[in-house]
Amino acid sequence: MNSMAENFRVTPYEVEGKVDYEKFAKEFGISIIDKKLEERIERLAGGTHYLLRRHIIYSHRDLNWLLDEYEKGNRFYLYTGIAPSGSMHIGHLIPFIFTQWLQEKFGAEVLIQIPDEEKALIRNVSFEEVHKLAHDDALNIIALGFDPKKTKIFFNTDYAGTLYRHAVRAAKRITFSMVKDAFGFTNETNIGSIFYTSMQAVPAFLKSVEEKKNVPCLIPLAIDQDVHFRIARDVLVKMGYYKPAIIHAKFLPGLSGKPKMSAHDPNDAIYLNDSPEVVEKKVLRAITGQQATAELQKKLGGNPEKCSVCQYYRYLFEPDDKKLEKIFEGERNGTLLAGEHKEDLAKRINKFLEEHRRKREALRGKLDVFMLKDYRAGQD
Amino acid sequence: MNSMAENFRVTPYEVEGKVDYEKFAKEFGISIIDKKLEERIERLAGGTHYLLRRHIIYSHRDLNWLLDEYEKGNRFYLYTGIAPSGSMHIGHLIPFIFTQWLQEKFGAEVLIQIPDEEKALIRNVSFEEVHKLAHDDALNIIALGFDPKKTKIFFNTDYAGTLYRHAVRAAKRITFSMVKDAFGFTNETNIGSIFYTSMQAVPAFLKSVEEKKNVPCLIPLAIDQDVHFRIARDVLVKMGYYKPAIIHAKFLPGLSGKPKMSAHDPNDAIYLNDSPEVVEKKVLRAITGQQATAELQKKLGGNPEKCSVCQYYRYLFEPDDKKLEKIFEGERNGTLLAGEHKEDLAKRINKFLEEHRRKREALRGKLDVFMLKDYRAGQD
Repeated sequence: MNSMAENFRVTPYEVEGKVDYEKFAKEFGISIIDKKLEERIERLAGGTHYLLRRHIIYSHRDLNWLLDEYEKGNRFYLYTGIAPSGSMHIGHLIPFIFTQWLQEKFGAEVLIQIPDEEKALIRNVSFEEVHKLAHDDALNIIALGFDPKKTKIFFNTDYAGTLYRHAVRAAKRITFSMVKDAFGFTNETNIGSIFYTSMQAVPAFLKSVEEKKNVPCLIPLAIDQDVHFRIARDVLVKMGYYKPAIIHAKFLPGLSGKPKMSAHDPNDAIYLNDSPEVVEKKVLRAITGQQATAELQKKLGGNPEKCSVCQYYRYLFEPDDKKLEKIFEGERNGTLLAGEHKEDLAKRINKFLEEHRRKREALRGKLDVFMLKDYRAGQD
Repeated sequence: MNSMAENFRVTPYEVEGKVDYEKFAKEFGISIIDKKLEERIERLAGGTHYLLRRHIIYSHRDLNWLLDEYEKGNRFYLYTGIAPSGSMHIGHLIPFIFTQWLQEKFGAEVLIQIPDEEKALIRNVSFEEVHKLAHDDALNIIALGFDPKKTKIFFNTDYAGTLYRHAVRAAKRITFSMVKDAFGFTNETNIGSIFYTSMQAVPAFLKSVEEKKNVPCLIPLAIDQDVHFRIARDVLVKMGYYKPAIIHAKFLPGLSGKPKMSAHDPNDAIYLNDSPEVVEKKVLRAITGQQATAELQKKLGGNPEKCSVCQYYRYLFEPDDKKLEKIFEGERNGTLLAGEHKEDLAKRINKFLEEHRRKREALRGKLDVFMLKDYRAGQD
């Protein structure tokens, strides 16, 4: 099992307990992004990003190697993705926001996989449902500002004419034992789920196949996806390709205090399609780090680390560090009361969502320039 | 394990011991084709076939149902295939010879799958080697006289854009336990091999998907392939499709007396590309049912059932029952001596191979009319 120390567990299909990110990194041989590496990224990028400064993008594999190659003129491409399962929520955006920034700063091509079979294999949802969601997921991602000239997106079932021939090559080197331990599978797991990780491995070497030479690849992802590449990185080396470098994002906590916003708990997550009223209602019910009463809060102050409202500013809605510190300070010293605190956040979220949906709808019907497709795609 | 009574074992990846075909059928709920069904096929086909008369095509699943549907005007299609692994040998042709006859007599469409990933996943051969063999396998099959208007052939890796989206639907209903027992897999089996059976299941319902209504399917195959459809038949019903009907061919015995001609034992098999000299050499070394010396044979006679030379006439090289009986009688009463017996067979085989290769080479470069392809096929 991809289980960890006694208190928490992280797999692509289950996140339980309070995630100890340092412990997670240590257990799986992941390196924390230290000040020196942070500064190296910023220097090469010619700019900073709040997700990096705030250690939300917090750890990596082989990022120094990737930057060495970059400095030698060996350009990398970015590969990321999302498996449709329910409507996308704001937490899903974090790795994509950072990917888009990397694309802009490093001029990198981006390959986005939408595995529209994965969750239908793993969970009790139909392939039809998932396939419908896939299109909107693609729009939601592209709306973050990806460059149409440098971004290619694909649905696994539509692109299998390319993916499968390479997936079997990776699959030949992956045993059931390996995925059983890594994903917590049993003998009763279906054979599609068992095979799936090899489909997720392909885009990490697809450019090398196409260009007939090794091309460095950087994969930004949320840490629950690291397990796929713990397997794939070793396999790719045996196949003669570079190990892809990886950078990991922490999870946006749920409004109810869960360690990872759940796409399946409507009270815990803010979906990209939530109406202003729904957002307001959800935020007003959120867990804060404040005292039980306004009086106590004024007197004792609260804890921004335990306050989901503060954390939402930190993760997504206040990129300005000084303004963020002011919000945290208000929470700590009791001058910022829960009601006002929440109302402000709801407004910020609604402003963001409105803008995001506007951009998304402007792209509707124009997705084709971004799509990689096999010929028969969508015929049935 | 797909093991059987104590004395023999049959899986797609291993055939051991002397196969007891009746026992095999009984153990796996397969029905023997009796006189009544044989006559029904012949009546509807408007002709007879030696493979059927001689019980080489010997058993079935749901063939009466399929013929009921046919009589109601609900036409079936045929689905068969071969996994490239080494050069094709003459034993491989048997199910295809019968499939071609069925196509001709029933006016049926034929779908031929060439799973050019299967043996590379299971055995120690490369995907490149297997892919190269696939093209010649396709030519060897088509050369048997398949109708270009009614025959479609595809390589799995080239056609995965169509196959994978349907394979995952089947795969969702197949657990590791099911394939583990059926194919003799272990925890150390690779995940591509584990997934593979779902790719083999797809053509059995692909026509129903494409025509948006249930179309009966008949699968002629050698009995080692039955296991794939023992799993798939139950799965297809749950997916809302007909169970495909199946007819089973016995194995052509090896020249050395093995129960199944092995593609991997050059002395045991006659390959379609063997030169006349090689064929002669191999046949001269074949096991016969004759006595140790010509003198003893003349006196005591031999046993055609144990004579691979007699069996080759029976399976492939003497469709005329009267002429076959004369050969068998000669073996039994000792008038036909080994040397002459073998020389005659070698000539017959060489005549057949020469003709077959002529037809095959006439098709070279013209395979495209038969090929189902996804757009990106062959790009890399």
